Amino acid sequence: MKQGKQTYRMQTPVYIAHTFAIGGPYEAKGSFGQFFDYVMDDDEWGCKTHEKTEIKMQKHAINGILEKSGLKQTEIDCLMGGDLLNQIVPSSFSAREFEIPFTGMYNACATFAESLAMGSTWLQNGMRNVICTVSSHYATAERQYRYPLELGTQPTPASQWTVTAAASALLTTDACDAPVIESVTLGKVVDLKCTDANNMGAAMAPAACDTILTHLRDTGRVVDDYDLIVTGDLGRFGMDTLRFLAKQEGIMLEDRLNDCGAMVYKKEQKPGQGGSGAGCSASVYCAYLHRQLCDGAWKRILFVPTGALLSKASSLQGESIPGIAHAVEIVKEN
Amino acid sequence: MKQGKQTYRMQTPVYIAHTFAIGGPYEAKGSFGQFFDYVMDDDEWGCKTHEKTEIKMQKHAINGILEKSGLKQTEIDCLMGGDLLNQIVPSSFSAREFEIPFTGMYNACATFAESLAMGSTWLQNGMRNVICTVSSHYATAERQYRYPLELGTQPTPASQWTVTAAASALLTTDACDAPVIESVTLGKVVDLKCTDANNMGAAMAPAACDTILTHLRDTGRVVDDYDLIVTGDLGRFGMDTLRFLAKQEGIMLEDRLNDCGAMVYKKEQKPGQGGSGAGCSASVYCAYLHRQLCDGAWKRILFVPTGALLSKASSLQGESIPGIAHAVEIVKEN
Repeated sequence: MKQGKQTYRMQTPVYIAHTFAIGGPYEAKGSFGQFFDYVMDDDEWGCKTHEKTEIKMQKHAINGILEKSGLKQTEIDCLMGGDLLNQIVPSSFSAREFEIPFTGMYNACATFAESLAMGSTWLQNGMRNVICTVSSHYATAERQYRYPLELGTQPTPASQWTVTAAASALLTTDACDAPVIESVTLGKVVDLKCTDANNMGAAMAPAACDTILTHLRDTGRVVDDYDLIVTGDLGRFGMDTLRFLAKQEGIMLEDRLNDCGAMVYKKEQKPGQGGSGAGCSASVYCAYLHRQLCDGAWKRILFVPTGALLSKASSLQGESIPGIAHAVEIVKEN
Repeated sequence: MKQGKQTYRMQTPVYIAHTFAIGGPYEAKGSFGQFFDYVMDDDEWGCKTHEKTEIKMQKHAINGILEKSGLKQTEIDCLMGGDLLNQIVPSSFSAREFEIPFTGMYNACATFAESLAMGSTWLQNGMRNVICTVSSHYATAERQYRYPLELGTQPTPASQWTVTAAASALLTTDACDAPVIESVTLGKVVDLKCTDANNMGAAMAPAACDTILTHLRDTGRVVDDYDLIVTGDLGRFGMDTLRFLAKQEGIMLEDRLNDCGAMVYKKEQKPGQGGSGAGCSASVYCAYLHRQLCDGAWKRILFVPTGALLSKASSLQGESIPGIAHAVEIVKEN
């Protein structure tokens, strides 16, 4: 049911029944290391290439959900998701291991939000169980978007560290004591002409601002109605930029706002402005935020993964970096 | 509403109210040249790179739909679509030109079917107007998947020619005298271990077979219930492979089957096995098939775009080519 301009309320309740997160050793040392369902010993995980590792990670995350839920493959209506790699190879190649229909998504690091939105709406139209899965890997992303790790390129001060993680969530219409997706707000592409591919936070903050403000207008809510508004991977600098942009529009986000990228690593790990990657917000949700909702620490959060829609070719051709953000309103009634 | 294993019937009718197709000069000389809404004078269309051309093509196709329908941007609920380029840059960069929410899709050359399926289901859940857009460009695809055109590489006998085209369709719940999407069947990833990146037809035919047979089982229909079953871009060889595979399962597709890739070029153009690319099935639908439905030549078709989920990296790492196909049942009552 449409509410306002870009927000859709779910009439059949969409339960996020289970989540599963797998991370690398660097993520294990981060803020939420103890909450991951599985931690890899190293970044290769027995694979010949990091791309193959990322495929294996997604496969493991999907199997993790099947195991936790006790559902058979035939009971899952669809796999939905994506990743950052060209032609979303980790998603497509992990999907071939399952006898489940697959629809690939791409909204860069906002892909998890997009998948949750798509899954939620299919649950209004006959599907019963959907698994949403995304991933990112530091080594595959660096090689593809910037330089191979072997070059030892120095990161710039505004840069972020791609999170090595895959995360899956089971969306179901089967009533259970789990957080519920109450509404989603689909975001527009916003491009304020940032061209620095090492400063994603600045490129994505305007899109996050646009989506959050649209969500508040559409739902008639105020910032304090949420226990937490949590963006995807703006990083520390990007999060400050978002606070500044929202303030200019008269919305004070202040400490009600946090960011998965800013949170995921400990400061002493020195990951620049924080984490990034499709696996960043997804794994922070699946490992930590979901747990907090289940434990009753929060009742209502606005989860806003953000994406920078660049490619290596677009940057090399002098294009700026368009941003996007989708908001997912997640509620846990006790 | 779910029907069978993988098929979903739309309860609120989904009208394909308008379509718009733009093609290159080579496509203009093909079988459906006279049906394109716009034909570019050359493959560059005044742009410095072919990637920028492809962005401009998508933008033009979306504007074409807005013009035909008379709808304002604010009346469109979402842009859905994708393309073959890394990080679906043509789709993301054309979307930034519009004040409309955007969700990016990727299922290779099956992306148009995926977008129609997603759009249809959102129309069951509060959306009123969705524009689905995809594109491909011979020069961008060759450079990315194979070799730059400047090398003058010789095509192999089983290869296909990427169609330079962008196509848009307006899905709406507003009743009108237009073809209707009655059901969609979401396909699984099928990989019979083909490794020849120059023989996409063979790689995708098993997925097409799986989806078509599943659709028939799910709906209880037989081949003759359709005026046409039309796959995406298997090409001539791939289409024969599909007939063979279906026959082994006891389903005779025979002349009821055709393929957009096999149809799009004239034989004297010598494009190998035919056309391919996300823009192939999309432009054949938007330029030709849609018109035939509107004109009453057919009443019920099964439109089955097919995708090969490879990337350059997956091929170089010795992976086989997973295929996927989604089926869209389109009906025009007179």
